[in-house]
Amino acid sequence: MTGLHPDRLLPAGEGARAIARELYEAVRALPLFCPHTHIDPWVLAEDRPFQDPYQLFVESDHYVQRILMSQGLSPAQLGLAGPAGVTAASPREAWRVFAANWHLFRGTPTRVWIEQQLVEVFGLDTPLGPDTADRLFDDLSALLATPEFRPRALFRRFGVEFLATTDAPHQPLTAHEKLQNGDWHGPVVPTFRPDAVVDLEKPDWVRSVQQLAEVADTDTSTFDGYLEALRIRRQDFIRLGATATDHGPVHPHAARAADRVVRDLYRRRLRGPVSQDEAELFRSHMLMELAQMSVDDGLVMQLHPGSTRNHDRAMFRDHGPDIGADIPHPVNFVHGLEELLNAYGNVANFTLVVFTLDETTLARELAPMAAHYPALRIGAPWWFFDSPGGMRRHRDLVTETAGFYNGAGFNDDARCFTSIPARHDMARRMDCGFLAELVAQHRLDLDEAHEIARLWTRDQAREVYLPDRT
Amino acid sequence: MTGLHPDRLLPAGEGARAIARELYEAVRALPLFCPHTHIDPWVLAEDRPFQDPYQLFVESDHYVQRILMSQGLSPAQLGLAGPAGVTAASPREAWRVFAANWHLFRGTPTRVWIEQQLVEVFGLDTPLGPDTADRLFDDLSALLATPEFRPRALFRRFGVEFLATTDAPHQPLTAHEKLQNGDWHGPVVPTFRPDAVVDLEKPDWVRSVQQLAEVADTDTSTFDGYLEALRIRRQDFIRLGATATDHGPVHPHAARAADRVVRDLYRRRLRGPVSQDEAELFRSHMLMELAQMSVDDGLVMQLHPGSTRNHDRAMFRDHGPDIGADIPHPVNFVHGLEELLNAYGNVANFTLVVFTLDETTLARELAPMAAHYPALRIGAPWWFFDSPGGMRRHRDLVTETAGFYNGAGFNDDARCFTSIPARHDMARRMDCGFLAELVAQHRLDLDEAHEIARLWTRDQAREVYLPDRT
Amino acid sequence: MTGLHPDRLLPAGEGARAIARELYEAVRALPLFCPHTHIDPWVLAEDRPFQDPYQLFVESDHYVQRILMSQGLSPAQLGLAGPAGVTAASPREAWRVFAANWHLFRGTPTRVWIEQQLVEVFGLDTPLGPDTADRLFDDLSALLATPEFRPRALFRRFGVEFLATTDAPHQPLTAHEKLQNGDWHGPVVPTFRPDAVVDLEKPDWVRSVQQLAEVADTDTSTFDGYLEALRIRRQDFIRLGATATDHGPVHPHAARAADRVVRDLYRRRLRGPVSQDEAELFRSHMLMELAQMSVDDGLVMQLHPGSTRNHDRAMFRDHGPDIGADIPHPVNFVHGLEELLNAYGNVANFTLVVFTLDETTLARELAPMAAHYPALRIGAPWWFFDSPGGMRRHRDLVTETAGFYNGAGFNDDARCFTSIPARHDMARRMDCGFLAELVAQHRLDLDEAHEIARLWTRDQAREVYLPDRT
Repeated sequence: MTGLHPDRLLPAGEGARAIARELYEAVRALPLFCPHTHIDPWVLAEDRPFQDPYQLFVESDHYVQRILMSQGLSPAQLGLAGPAGVTAASPREAWRVFAANWHLFRGTPTRVWIEQQLVEVFGLDTPLGPDTADRLFDDLSALLATPEFRPRALFRRFGVEFLATTDAPHQPLTAHEKLQNGDWHGPVVPTFRPDAVVDLEKPDWVRSVQQLAEVADTDTSTFDGYLEALRIRRQDFIRLGATATDHGPVHPHAARAADRVVRDLYRRRLRGPVSQDEAELFRSHMLMELAQMSVDDGLVMQLHPGSTRNHDRAMFRDHGPDIGADIPHPVNFVHGLEELLNAYGNVANFTLVVFTLDETTLARELAPMAAHYPALRIGAPWWFFDSPGGMRRHRDLVTETAGFYNGAGFNDDARCFTSIPARHDMARRMDCGFLAELVAQHRLDLDEAHEIARLWTRDQAREVYLPDRT
Repeated sequence: MTGLHPDRLLPAGEGARAIARELYEAVRALPLFCPHTHIDPWVLAEDRPFQDPYQLFVESDHYVQRILMSQGLSPAQLGLAGPAGVTAASPREAWRVFAANWHLFRGTPTRVWIEQQLVEVFGLDTPLGPDTADRLFDDLSALLATPEFRPRALFRRFGVEFLATTDAPHQPLTAHEKLQNGDWHGPVVPTFRPDAVVDLEKPDWVRSVQQLAEVADTDTSTFDGYLEALRIRRQDFIRLGATATDHGPVHPHAARAADRVVRDLYRRRLRGPVSQDEAELFRSHMLMELAQMSVDDGLVMQLHPGSTRNHDRAMFRDHGPDIGADIPHPVNFVHGLEELLNAYGNVANFTLVVFTLDETTLARELAPMAAHYPALRIGAPWWFFDSPGGMRRHRDLVTETAGFYNGAGFNDDARCFTSIPARHDMARRMDCGFLAELVAQHRLDLDEAHEIARLWTRDQAREVYLPDRT
Repeated sequence: MTGLHPDRLLPAGEGARAIARELYEAVRALPLFCPHTHIDPWVLAEDRPFQDPYQLFVESDHYVQRILMSQGLSPAQLGLAGPAGVTAASPREAWRVFAANWHLFRGTPTRVWIEQQLVEVFGLDTPLGPDTADRLFDDLSALLATPEFRPRALFRRFGVEFLATTDAPHQPLTAHEKLQNGDWHGPVVPTFRPDAVVDLEKPDWVRSVQQLAEVADTDTSTFDGYLEALRIRRQDFIRLGATATDHGPVHPHAARAADRVVRDLYRRRLRGPVSQDEAELFRSHMLMELAQMSVDDGLVMQLHPGSTRNHDRAMFRDHGPDIGADIPHPVNFVHGLEELLNAYGNVANFTLVVFTLDETTLARELAPMAAHYPALRIGAPWWFFDSPGGMRRHRDLVTETAGFYNGAGFNDDARCFTSIPARHDMARRMDCGFLAELVAQHRLDLDEAHEIARLWTRDQAREVYLPDRT
């Protein structure tokens, strides 16, 4: 694309577009509220400069890598080392490969985000391509070395008002401690994501649970001790500002198992592997325990289920998670969350935000459930659906049953720090376009649309993730 | 919204909108054919005035209640008594709560229906809201007390030409007898809905079957007697004008079980509970028996499967069905209806109308099946999908495979009597918009679109539900 | 419809339509690349004239028949003989029935294809209908008898540059041999479709395997001999130009079974029937064997799973396959293809094209998988979804995750020879409309859209099916 058109992503029809423009203008510059990211907290804690555009856009983003690999490029060509003996391309070489294949991203949200970053974050309107690869590599590297492009400077420039990272409870929160105790007080907080100590199938589960013991200063050799260690760590997270937890089970199944069974399973796993069914039973039981903890301490519970992780086992073995290709599978929330919602769905202090990779559940299950249980909020379009079409289908499928108020606001799920503004901008444009079409069809007044645009852009997320501070 | 825009719900694009307007003008005033409602027949049998707007719009409509409860309002605040010791808000207080939270309905079809009722049925253009709650309560109550707003007067004003209620076979049809034998001959007929005597899991099944025995004057202590009682009652319904049955099984599974097994199961259930699997087997067998009865007596068979009833068990315990939150679940028609369609799908005298809450089945299963079996018709968008987007997706997903002629026409599924015209109006607008876009894309001639608009608005439902009288 | 509007199927909005027109003009006349058809190769090998319009449009097209039968017309009325004793309508009589019910096809792609054939292939603008049935029957029959309407003449006129038929390996390829060795060198090649010898549930499997032995001149009394015969036949197909295989398993399940089990199963089936589960195990195992063969010999592997064949058993018994109503069912690719893609998904020489009848898998499973595995390509909308809406949803659901380059190009899946140009034209119009809307929303530059329109129209299919000759 040559330049960024001011009307990009807005509805094509003139009537709706004019309304969408007006709505978008009113929300485009609102602060960025980021309750769910995968930003490394050290980036901000140490304010380390980003290295080069390869590291920023390619190395750290497995969605970029997978599109390239799907067309036959090897991990080594993309600069990913993998097993011993393979020589990976240098950052500049891999960047050239990326630039030469930039056309592969046409039609994807990745392209929208990266183009917007080049123009709006870096002020570069050189189109990416094989002829400009070196020039852009040099120009971007030079900019990244300047103080204006250090993470904290960008954080301020972007207008981020709240940013949550994703953190494991068995590891120390050193970066967050540094952030809280240093000279910079950006509103950056951790999120409690205990998958590594909850999923008995993880090969290093035993070691993780030992680390949990150390960091919580609690004996985790029994199931009760383990639960206590989780509770202690949640308090540590809360002290550092955390307002939420996050859980990525294979299936959205939550059901209490008998105490005796769970204790025995826990004990056996400390000594060796357990079966897949037993691991599923444990994950399912733990969702109930963790929901109870959220009821007790007020942390918003986020649920991101439904992905078959590391589908490509050889890639996973050689290159680790993410490169191993996670593929969504069908899920069933109506039965899977029945016990959890019966136990906690009407508890005033509890909020459960559910995300889905199975769009068929939006209208069939999640919207009707969110339109009943006060505790339940439908999370923003996630992962593969964090895209113009995904956002549009989400609104279409959810709104008529659940209304405008049973969502949880936008979250950018960002891995690449500089992509944050572009990700929010896409959501703002798509939401304003959706609302504009309702106005154009006389289903919503313009002043109502303004109110909802503001709600979705910022206020709804604040209300869900920072209820006491809204 | 301020007022009702004449173009509401029509396509936003100028070209298609002009065509849609023309199509809509030609069908907007056609009589209302209502083959499937949940209107209480006593309302018309006794022509009792509606009490007040709370009773009309809130108390009787659990969709209104669930949106309010999903945002934390309690049943008591909504005027619903529940368990002993709870003081429920008075009608006026609960109406104020409803009015103060009216914004929660933005984006939902409920809002469209209620706004249209206020303006078109009651002639009130005061926008609903906290400041107008009392005034509207008083104005509406006053109107409801006048003869012009008695049910039969509204029935005439609305132009209802046929209305079927939903009725249990184990209960007397007193209201319908009164309607047939009285001084008013509105075309109001019962529908045979035997779920209460077919679902062995219902706690009061034994009592219902005894009532069935009494009302049919037949011994139901054996399975054969039970079938005979159902046949007798179907004739009673037919005498009162019934043209259809309705069935709401958990799953769309129909399969004959061995005679011996069914007889034994029936006998055992009379003495005590049976297992969930046994109940499913019985429901599944009974769909075959009931289809055979429809083949014999000509009643159109309606199937509404796929809802997990009373998902929220505490709400169900305290407030009964509906408030207990019914949530759709995935269904499989291709295998579930295989035996039924093999037995009856090509029988000339048989019509099966299938409704779905799982939109994924529309294009994948129902359209291909309806485009083969003469007996099968696809029912109108139902329940959560009785909405502008639901209607639009239905047409998009069904039409290309099944054409325009394998549906069953619109039905309003109304619980609130005064909402009937608004519900038909929404369908007429959406259907005309869909057809207009086909015309605008030169996929349909304008005169063909006129013909189909009329078919969908009225003629198709008449043809399916009143084949001899069309 | 009266005439064919030049803008038919293009977007209704003026902005997008103008762009779509420009894109379409640039690709409308490109040659027709047809890598997957059900055209009988004898039609071209013998250049036999088509008999009459009934045979061309009705008798050979079970989609036409099913729409008519779904509205109560009998097979006999449509000229289909069926069981002994039934007198079927003559071609002219059946054509009259078809013409009298032509309105039933409104809204379906069949109507678009047939109307376009009448006007563009036959130059007849008489609208089809009861009054014109005889005239059209006569006019069409007369045209079909002329040299200009012989298959080879039409082949040239249509601009077909490559056409693959679908052929069983246990039958001789006589028609293709004649085509290769005769005086006409149209680029017509066979496709290796071994379902009949892979599906142990087929009643005549034993006979088919014996025929396979004969035609491959190899002993198939052991599993190893059977595999060898398949390999030999693949080479025969390749010699006649084949570039692909095709497989239509009930489920997309591929998993190797133990050698011993498969050999035993094969042996037992030669002596008598095996269970349904055993047949599924064999099909599933054979997909792995056949994928390995494709890795070895380079034939593109096409997978068309997910249909419950012959749903209507009585129709199947009386009228054979197709008339028996095949109905799609839900499928799961993420788990079903896990083993196959782990084995072969990253093999450079292997291409797997997957088609689906379950649209829910497009965004959830196929797009993420195709955006990872280099071997995997998503096939064009298939069967019931080979329609304007099906094509549009396909692009919407696939593009954002998989981009523009992980598809396999269009294929027409044609049974009716004269429908080929109309089928390609529909896809070209829909693709150009989709791209035009991206341009109108400033998500794609116009020159990029031109490039992709060309890719999708022709180049992508060439690249997938004729990689060495592109």
